[in-house]
Amino acid sequence: MAKNKTPNPKSLARKPRGFPDKREDVLKAELDMIHRVTSVYRLWGFEGIETGAFEYADALGKFLPDQDRPNAGVFAIQDDDEQWMSLRYDLTAPLARFAAEHWDTLPKPFRRFAYGPVWRNEKPGPGRFREFMQCDADTVGAKGPAADAEMIAMMAEALKAAGAQNFNVRVNTRDLMSGLLDSIDANDEEMRLTILRALDKLDRLGISGVADLLGEGREDESGDYTKGAGLDQERIKRVLAFAEAGCATRGETLDSLAAVVSGNEAYDRGIAELTQIDALLASMGAKDDQVVFDPTIVRGLEYYTGPVFEGELLDEIVDEKGRSVRIGSVGGGGRYDGLVSRFRSEEIPATGFSIGISRLAAAMSLTGELNELSGPVVVLVLDREHVADSHELAHQLRAAGIRSEVYMGSSGMRPQMKYADRRGAPAVVIVGEDERNKGTVTVKDLIVGAQKAKAIKDNTEWRESRPGQVEVDRSEMVATIKGMLEAGE
Amino acid sequence: MAKNKTPNPKSLARKPRGFPDKREDVLKAELDMIHRVTSVYRLWGFEGIETGAFEYADALGKFLPDQDRPNAGVFAIQDDDEQWMSLRYDLTAPLARFAAEHWDTLPKPFRRFAYGPVWRNEKPGPGRFREFMQCDADTVGAKGPAADAEMIAMMAEALKAAGAQNFNVRVNTRDLMSGLLDSIDANDEEMRLTILRALDKLDRLGISGVADLLGEGREDESGDYTKGAGLDQERIKRVLAFAEAGCATRGETLDSLAAVVSGNEAYDRGIAELTQIDALLASMGAKDDQVVFDPTIVRGLEYYTGPVFEGELLDEIVDEKGRSVRIGSVGGGGRYDGLVSRFRSEEIPATGFSIGISRLAAAMSLTGELNELSGPVVVLVLDREHVADSHELAHQLRAAGIRSEVYMGSSGMRPQMKYADRRGAPAVVIVGEDERNKGTVTVKDLIVGAQKAKAIKDNTEWRESRPGQVEVDRSEMVATIKGMLEAGE
Repeated sequence: MAKNKTPNPKSLARKPRGFPDKREDVLKAELDMIHRVTSVYRLWGFEGIETGAFEYADALGKFLPDQDRPNAGVFAIQDDDEQWMSLRYDLTAPLARFAAEHWDTLPKPFRRFAYGPVWRNEKPGPGRFREFMQCDADTVGAKGPAADAEMIAMMAEALKAAGAQNFNVRVNTRDLMSGLLDSIDANDEEMRLTILRALDKLDRLGISGVADLLGEGREDESGDYTKGAGLDQERIKRVLAFAEAGCATRGETLDSLAAVVSGNEAYDRGIAELTQIDALLASMGAKDDQVVFDPTIVRGLEYYTGPVFEGELLDEIVDEKGRSVRIGSVGGGGRYDGLVSRFRSEEIPATGFSIGISRLAAAMSLTGELNELSGPVVVLVLDREHVADSHELAHQLRAAGIRSEVYMGSSGMRPQMKYADRRGAPAVVIVGEDERNKGTVTVKDLIVGAQKAKAIKDNTEWRESRPGQVEVDRSEMVATIKGMLEAGE
Repeated sequence: MAKNKTPNPKSLARKPRGFPDKREDVLKAELDMIHRVTSVYRLWGFEGIETGAFEYADALGKFLPDQDRPNAGVFAIQDDDEQWMSLRYDLTAPLARFAAEHWDTLPKPFRRFAYGPVWRNEKPGPGRFREFMQCDADTVGAKGPAADAEMIAMMAEALKAAGAQNFNVRVNTRDLMSGLLDSIDANDEEMRLTILRALDKLDRLGISGVADLLGEGREDESGDYTKGAGLDQERIKRVLAFAEAGCATRGETLDSLAAVVSGNEAYDRGIAELTQIDALLASMGAKDDQVVFDPTIVRGLEYYTGPVFEGELLDEIVDEKGRSVRIGSVGGGGRYDGLVSRFRSEEIPATGFSIGISRLAAAMSLTGELNELSGPVVVLVLDREHVADSHELAHQLRAAGIRSEVYMGSSGMRPQMKYADRRGAPAVVIVGEDERNKGTVTVKDLIVGAQKAKAIKDNTEWRESRPGQVEVDRSEMVATIKGMLEAGE
């Protein structure tokens, strides 16, 4: 009767769009990355702190550093006292709130690192998530340029520690950019933005594409036309000279930048600032091939107030359309003197950066710079009556530090082998009646076994040679498996 | 003029109630805890996974395992397609969704661990947060008792690995409890709950207090009266015999439990189940003093369907009222066969547990079982013109693996020393004009220095002896500081 009742309508197991489920490989890659990156931050003396997921919406403010857009794009909720709270969209806004709230009692300058998920309520899509991991470092209460240089040098160290081999950190400063724009009389806000957007596309469009965008405009492959900044030839030439000033060393880049504009105060200030940063970078061990000056770097103009920089992986990968593309930016930062000051009556300068952990880990796994994971040894259960014996064997393996588990299901031998395979097990332990009577165990090396099995032609030969399989005394099980694991490394 | 404008009203730096800010000491304690606990889960062959912060509200369901209450108490938000999403309130509901969603392709049984923040929209108060860290392990798709025994044994191992010395995991099973209630004809739902609530208070009220609650009722110290279950003396005696059945070993406890009720099917099933679990626990290395059978353990009756267990720290601490109290539960779990099955047409049994990381770390730091943190070496900046030189010295220290930083502010010697003190620096490096000319550095050991300074009577003596301070050649700086740090360990 109860059996014949209409079953309850079952809930549908599905997850909201844009929130990733991470299996062990991805999770482990991200954790390793966080560990390596934060180890650098710690070595440089930064203090780890963590803030809650929510901030009051008015305390978060409307700074979305990378996007020049207002308070849309966050997950907001009204608390029971009717105040609006938002899930943090980055780790900088909560730091600003924390530093301002506790400013009087903090060691000053306050240098902290943080990592954790941030949330953005945007349209999700393939590879575009609404939750992702960041790992930041910031110094609050120090004017440049030493604090800025430290951030830049430390980002390079962090990327190196994360395993990146082919990368650089590209540095620019706001004054240089505005000095250039002033020097060509680009006083109109829209014209300035058009020029900056054009510079930002140098990597993608090359110098002639940028020249078109600085002049009349440009038609792309699809036939779309983008109106240009309308500069005359002389001004275009100057902007292009600026864009192409990058040289092999930071010092040479500074020399060639100095030749582009003369007699502009902001520009000279920018050159002087980068000159100081260059000397500091050298004292911090930042090499010329890891940290470069790149005048085309543009980042959130309403947010950053001084030096800005971006970390870039230079490796190329093949995208979904089969084209070879550079991985590109995995984070960046700069000086943002307005963010903390907003809460306080005194000026509180600040500088810092963020590394996009999910993006970095994904990129490194694409370039093969991450290790593959190995699963646990699986002890099979052939005779349910003796299941405790299998657990005893797993216990012995774990006591020797060997990751291992007992098959927990109720299926037979073949599904158990399939299970071990799916778990990426390097070996299985088998105790049948035969082994039990003799006081032995059979250990099957799944890695060597799989290799040898490829060379075997038929079932008879397989049964006779049993590739990668040995029967040993129970007392030798641990040593046998240790040997297999070491050989497999 | 611009100076005379009314300044913008400043935002107030404050955070929402119930979301903790964690400084380095707390954060590090929690991270260490997570690392130690998940290392055990990994060693036992569990796979780490991570799900997003949000789940659809209908997929989360209305199971709040510890609280027998419906879907209130979560942070919910409507997505732009009008579906309701909730921040996860535990790690089990997202696992159930994940396992059900991917059941066909997962290795089965699916054994996973997870950790991360969970959120509950409850009234915050001192020590009561709305966001806290959990660290769970679960097996989906395995019937007991081996899978249950594994969870219990692994929780004990995890607590041991976390550094707990004085703890146990207390195990009970539902059948035993319902068999007892059946055997005393407690068929009324409210009466059953009253009896279970009384048993749950044994630790706090002692046997006579529980006896009162099983009978007519009890008046507490404040004069509040709690109505009892109204049992007669004979029945009270049986329930108390049940409650007091705990003995030195699991085997003895089973014997004394078996004597309390006879001829009840559920009760006998419970005894048989615990007997099997006992044998399995032994094979997994779970000692009698770490895992005990405790018939008074009661957990979420609508949620758990078999064995239940709780991890308890037995250390006593002094509470805010000066009373000595046992730290108590730091997590628990049990078998919950209904949760995953809710999404699927087939039965999918499951078992698992959660460790409250924030609570465990806080408890361990109260019992002094966590290490104190040491800050970085601070290189002072006495002459701003030579700041790059300070950075060069810090670079040398870091290259030798010594955590170190340069003072980044613009204040003088005294505030710099105060800064080093606040950062918990073990030593500072000082290069004045004198040292620069001689090619030396002065290293001040702040730990030894502070100890010696206590014994010094006046300023003159202090200036002459300069406790813990040495001047060495620059090339000896790293070795000198290494020696100091090793001596301080």
